[in-house]
Amino acid sequence: MKADTPVSCQLRVRFTRGSDIALGPGKVDLLEAIDRHGSISKAAASMHMSYRRAWLLVNTMNRCFKSPLVETRRGGDEKGGTRLSAQGQSVLGHYRDLEAAMRSAGEKNMEAILDLIVAPDTD
Amino acid sequence: MKADTPVSCQLRVRFTRGSDIALGPGKVDLLEAIDRHGSISKAAASMHMSYRRAWLLVNTMNRCFKSPLVETRRGGDEKGGTRLSAQGQSVLGHYRDLEAAMRSAGEKNMEAILDLIVAPDTD
Repeated sequence: MKADTPVSCQLRVRFTRGSDIALGPGKVDLLEAIDRHGSISKAAASMHMSYRRAWLLVNTMNRCFKSPLVETRRGGDEKGGTRLSAQGQSVLGHYRDLEAAMRSAGEKNMEAILDLIVAPDTD
Repeated sequence: MKADTPVSCQLRVRFTRGSDIALGPGKVDLLEAIDRHGSISKAAASMHMSYRRAWLLVNTMNRCFKSPLVETRRGGDEKGGTRLSAQGQSVLGHYRDLEAAMRSAGEKNMEAILDLIVAPDTD
């Protein structure tokens, strides 16, 4: 346990489509990593995630949204041909804005609750 | 799958103290039920939860906060002697306000993302 982060507040926003998780914090982090690295395998490696898992998450997202969030050209992953579509960029931007707006709006009540929690003993 | 709720957005706010979850949606629902029923056992029953599980959740909350959120007089549970403390009422109020403020602040971006998700086939 890190002594400098004894108590904290986590916010999770999750979009579901039937029993599928269309979008959540992990998938959004993956979108951001794909945007940065231009490759699913490099994005997966940067997140210490298997390629297979990253591919499955991308597959679920692409299936849940009206058009794919991640575009991979044929044989493209190894050659840097993977990127976010315009809709992928849009969804990523909306999600980050959503988190920021929520954090900001909730800050006062969040702090009030955090102030009432006992700091844990230093281990 | 209910046809009238095909896609949705869930918000979860969780407060942690070290490895303990001090407060989250389930514990807040339990606080609300205890406030309504004046009894841990009745609150548990109303949530289809075992008395043991409810008691453990209350125990974790009481341990994590500076003063107990739930007060039970000796032998009080069966006699309706269980209630939220002033701090319990305060934490419950702050959490519900927090959720409402976040939902309201995030509504626009939330709707923008929901609009891009495919509605599932009717099963």
